[in-house]
Amino acid sequence: MTNNTQKIDGLTLDLAQANKNKLKQLFPSVFTEIKNDKGELVESLDFDKLKAELGKFTESFENHRERYGMDWPGKKEVLKLIQEKSAATLKPIRDESVNFESTENLFIEGDNLEVLKLLQKSYYNKIKMIYIDPPYNTGKEFIYPDNFSESLDTYLEYAGLVDSTGKRFATNTANEGRFHTKWLNMMYPRLYLARNLLRDDGVIFISIDDNEVSNLRKLCDEIFGEENFIEQVVWEKMYTVKNDTTFISRSHEYVLIYAKTLASLKFALLPRTDEMNARYSNPDNDIRGVWKSVPMYAKGESKSSNFSIVSHTGKSFSVPANSHWRYSQENIENLINEKRIYFGKDGNSQPNLKRFLTEVQQGLKPRSMWFHEDVGSNDTANREMKGLFNDLIIFDFPKPSTLIIKMLQVATSKDSICLDFFAGSATTAHAVLDLNNQDGGNRKFIMVQLPEKAPEDSEAYKAGYTNIADIGKERIRRVIKKLNEDDKNKLDLDGTTKQDRGFKVLKLDKSNFKQWRALSPETPQDEIIKQMELSLNKVEAKATEEDMLYEIIIKAGLSPTQPIAKLELAGTPVYAIEDGLFMACLAPKVTQELFDEVSAKKPAKFICLDSAFEGNDKLKANALLTFEARNTGKDDASQIKFEVI
Amino acid sequence: MTNNTQKIDGLTLDLAQANKNKLKQLFPSVFTEIKNDKGELVESLDFDKLKAELGKFTESFENHRERYGMDWPGKKEVLKLIQEKSAATLKPIRDESVNFESTENLFIEGDNLEVLKLLQKSYYNKIKMIYIDPPYNTGKEFIYPDNFSESLDTYLEYAGLVDSTGKRFATNTANEGRFHTKWLNMMYPRLYLARNLLRDDGVIFISIDDNEVSNLRKLCDEIFGEENFIEQVVWEKMYTVKNDTTFISRSHEYVLIYAKTLASLKFALLPRTDEMNARYSNPDNDIRGVWKSVPMYAKGESKSSNFSIVSHTGKSFSVPANSHWRYSQENIENLINEKRIYFGKDGNSQPNLKRFLTEVQQGLKPRSMWFHEDVGSNDTANREMKGLFNDLIIFDFPKPSTLIIKMLQVATSKDSICLDFFAGSATTAHAVLDLNNQDGGNRKFIMVQLPEKAPEDSEAYKAGYTNIADIGKERIRRVIKKLNEDDKNKLDLDGTTKQDRGFKVLKLDKSNFKQWRALSPETPQDEIIKQMELSLNKVEAKATEEDMLYEIIIKAGLSPTQPIAKLELAGTPVYAIEDGLFMACLAPKVTQELFDEVSAKKPAKFICLDSAFEGNDKLKANALLTFEARNTGKDDASQIKFEVI
Repeated sequence: MTNNTQKIDGLTLDLAQANKNKLKQLFPSVFTEIKNDKGELVESLDFDKLKAELGKFTESFENHRERYGMDWPGKKEVLKLIQEKSAATLKPIRDESVNFESTENLFIEGDNLEVLKLLQKSYYNKIKMIYIDPPYNTGKEFIYPDNFSESLDTYLEYAGLVDSTGKRFATNTANEGRFHTKWLNMMYPRLYLARNLLRDDGVIFISIDDNEVSNLRKLCDEIFGEENFIEQVVWEKMYTVKNDTTFISRSHEYVLIYAKTLASLKFALLPRTDEMNARYSNPDNDIRGVWKSVPMYAKGESKSSNFSIVSHTGKSFSVPANSHWRYSQENIENLINEKRIYFGKDGNSQPNLKRFLTEVQQGLKPRSMWFHEDVGSNDTANREMKGLFNDLIIFDFPKPSTLIIKMLQVATSKDSICLDFFAGSATTAHAVLDLNNQDGGNRKFIMVQLPEKAPEDSEAYKAGYTNIADIGKERIRRVIKKLNEDDKNKLDLDGTTKQDRGFKVLKLDKSNFKQWRALSPETPQDEIIKQMELSLNKVEAKATEEDMLYEIIIKAGLSPTQPIAKLELAGTPVYAIEDGLFMACLAPKVTQELFDEVSAKKPAKFICLDSAFEGNDKLKANALLTFEARNTGKDDASQIKFEVI
Repeated sequence: MTNNTQKIDGLTLDLAQANKNKLKQLFPSVFTEIKNDKGELVESLDFDKLKAELGKFTESFENHRERYGMDWPGKKEVLKLIQEKSAATLKPIRDESVNFESTENLFIEGDNLEVLKLLQKSYYNKIKMIYIDPPYNTGKEFIYPDNFSESLDTYLEYAGLVDSTGKRFATNTANEGRFHTKWLNMMYPRLYLARNLLRDDGVIFISIDDNEVSNLRKLCDEIFGEENFIEQVVWEKMYTVKNDTTFISRSHEYVLIYAKTLASLKFALLPRTDEMNARYSNPDNDIRGVWKSVPMYAKGESKSSNFSIVSHTGKSFSVPANSHWRYSQENIENLINEKRIYFGKDGNSQPNLKRFLTEVQQGLKPRSMWFHEDVGSNDTANREMKGLFNDLIIFDFPKPSTLIIKMLQVATSKDSICLDFFAGSATTAHAVLDLNNQDGGNRKFIMVQLPEKAPEDSEAYKAGYTNIADIGKERIRRVIKKLNEDDKNKLDLDGTTKQDRGFKVLKLDKSNFKQWRALSPETPQDEIIKQMELSLNKVEAKATEEDMLYEIIIKAGLSPTQPIAKLELAGTPVYAIEDGLFMACLAPKVTQELFDEVSAKKPAKFICLDSAFEGNDKLKANALLTFEARNTGKDDASQIKFEVI
């Protein structure tokens, strides 16, 4: 039917396949072909060969059942869950978006496990920085259920996207057992999939508190590698003392930082503070600018220091007791000639080296303790949210955007893509927009958030925000509005900005294509048969052309934020993506004229709907010939892959 | 030979036995008698009965091999190691001690695993607070080797107490594999044994940094129970920024806190600061003393607040918008009558409640972040050590004594016993002596430290301190000297103190009694036979009476710090412990006159050496008769247990 070799299979990245490829690249010899039960030749790992490659590093594992590490019930099933492919899609929602056509920011509403699977192709190795603020498992939070084989169906029921008896999901409480296990089963696959999206020089920041910090360290040591641990930063979330606490008033939580690959990661310096620069002055009006005094000697005796330094007034200084000069006699003479040594106003004081501000590292390394004065506290964050939402307490325990700005400052460059798949009230989006505004950057954000219901007695619910995704989207809209208004008030701007102050809303849903949905491991066999009978029209009745287009983009691993050109060829709408390399027609009817015009545009790939042939097999055969003709190498279009869905 | 039922077996507490007893107390029915291989009746756990007691809580474990928790190679062997009894002893060293006769403080030199075993009987359930500063496993430290079956022999070789080829122990480096495993195997048995020593209201504080913090949490969750976790305190160890760091300048480490039994633990309040008290004043000269203004209203409307508060000048105040009065109208009228509401100097200002300092909680809860300004930093600790040791850098990474004083302030009362079994430079002893000096307390300390060799190129070694135990002891001596000198300079003191400013040095060594040494699991069988042949004199040639006495005290579970009276009965020295309840004669010769005089003193137990009978079986039989006579109930000495060693 089609000549394309890399068929869009309607599913997300096959992770087992990707992992096999990685291993095969390192050890080509460890794969072999063996006959399976049915007598077919299949590719298989030869464990004995791999053991031989690893030599003594497999012996101890073979001989001992005890090994170093964390274990919990379900850990092995989770690995299977990661490898199960998703047949879901992301539907564009224009009326909830801001600057839908032009923005490169995303807000994706849905279960983050399914969403991370859907992003595996489009964002593999593309994300510079991930920040997440997952549930801390305090015993009062909703933990997404870990029924391993039905995550999409579970989500659709949860979000009310399918008819159901209205499943309720409870909070995870310490009493009911499997408390840590549930949390670990929730976090493991999400972190695993997130790591795939990080660039080699990428980095993840994770907020957590004492409830799960040691489990999270163990998880991350396993997923990211202990050698990629950067720091367990302490954030001072509260600066007052709760005197009604039993033992100790908890004023901190943590931000765990892991690199994708330590050797590739670089952190930017934080801006120097005014206070630090104030220590530099220019008492001798040096044309090289302000400087600071630095002692010429250090502790510990040295024989090579038995000389004196003589000032231009002739005063002589020998090295203090138990000390040595930090420079050789020759170097010191050079320094004196270069007027880099200061002997005080009168020229008779102890010599000091002049360290010029221009020669100092123009920034600061971050410390591992982040104080509320610098990055804000829980209280700051509450006031920030109240400022945006008319004094309402709309979200519990938000993070201050200044906390995330500090992470962005050290970990991103101005064009980085930043992902937050536990977006909550979208503080990360707020931080990205604010920092871009401050430093003229063009960082992009991808927020992912479950439409977790707000409690009916909450201020958020009463104010009309029934779920957390709605709060996040509304917050971004209000931040954008405020930034745009601030710009209008600036005299040196014309009220418009070139920065990307918009976001595209996508929502997780089941596939638009019945045959793809049938591929999902969640679909029962009799359902597949039923769907195959209906195969004359494989498209969901409600699916719009745009819904289908976004599904194709995501399943093909293209970016859902790139510009889409809508052409009209032979009177039929055709979408051109990646400067026309990729073309799709999702109209209900196709013609030979359309194929001729598409063929003349020479895309690398063209896709249309199977149902659009309306059962006309001759037209389909001609279409194939048309695109194959382009493939003979007789003209300059070397290849057009043609695929019907 | 002897009528005593609780024979001193020359070994440390039998932990398997103790654990069995604990379980039996909870579930008496789960133990049964079964015939063993030899046809003897022995007591045994009936697992099926225990499963029945625990119902559903055993099912899941039976059905699943995967379980929640940390594992590492050697974990099971470590449990055996814990249960192996020690046949070592602690020898008193008078000339290294200060106030040997009267002090109740201890400095024990030796491998802390053996020492903790030796302390199991004497200090079971006696310690209020443990602080330890174990190796952080940074890859640069000595980790005591985990050859499970030979810990005492290993120690004796290490400490040079037996002839050996001079074994060298290397540092634990990250490259060599088993890096975390070695550390875990080192920590697990020590923490397990330490927990036994804690009182029910006891608490342990452990310094650690990011290298092993998550493993240590897992260990402590297992040993102390996750429900007894109190806090992971953050200590700001450094306040400057290391700008040559790769990513983040590490300025903190942790203090983990676990209770023995959470419900029994109470923390004392920290003293209120002057700054806090300065917020109280007395503008209206209230005879109840200084007070602070507190608002009368809180956020949120309430219908019961639609009344006004009227001042004595007649001015009326209604509740502010969106607020409610915090007290009922009736209560507020009472407060006005009691002059507990202040309307400003003129009587016309917004009403405020007066909160009197005398009615405020007289102290502060500690926060979870401990800043260098309050408890000191690494730098403070270095300066503290330099101040004591003539500016020498005698110990790497000491803790400031102020850090440990804060722990003592919240966790101990004035008569608590405090243990540190990774004593290092004995900062904990320093803190105990200093805090006792500040608050007139009488806390006692027990320091345990391995005589770990100081590197030959270190300042400590050059100054004559060849191992860390020597540094610790010398530090305590210097602290004591300084405190005593400070007292002399005080006008209101006569230069003497009633505080315990001394310490008794004990050193780990092999047993003084050959037959007890033979009981050690480390002794080979042919060695035992050889020793049995020599049984005519079971005492080591070099053993002094005091050495033997301390061994008997420790093995009997008596306190090695209690006063010992030396009597002379029938011309022979006899030691009386616990006000004469326990008597021992360790002289090389005993007589019937001695037994008569001891018997007249009516101790509960009397011990003498087997060799002291010089083979005179008749004298031994008579001695037995003498003490049995006291046992007939005919007179008021109901029982004298008699034991020969």
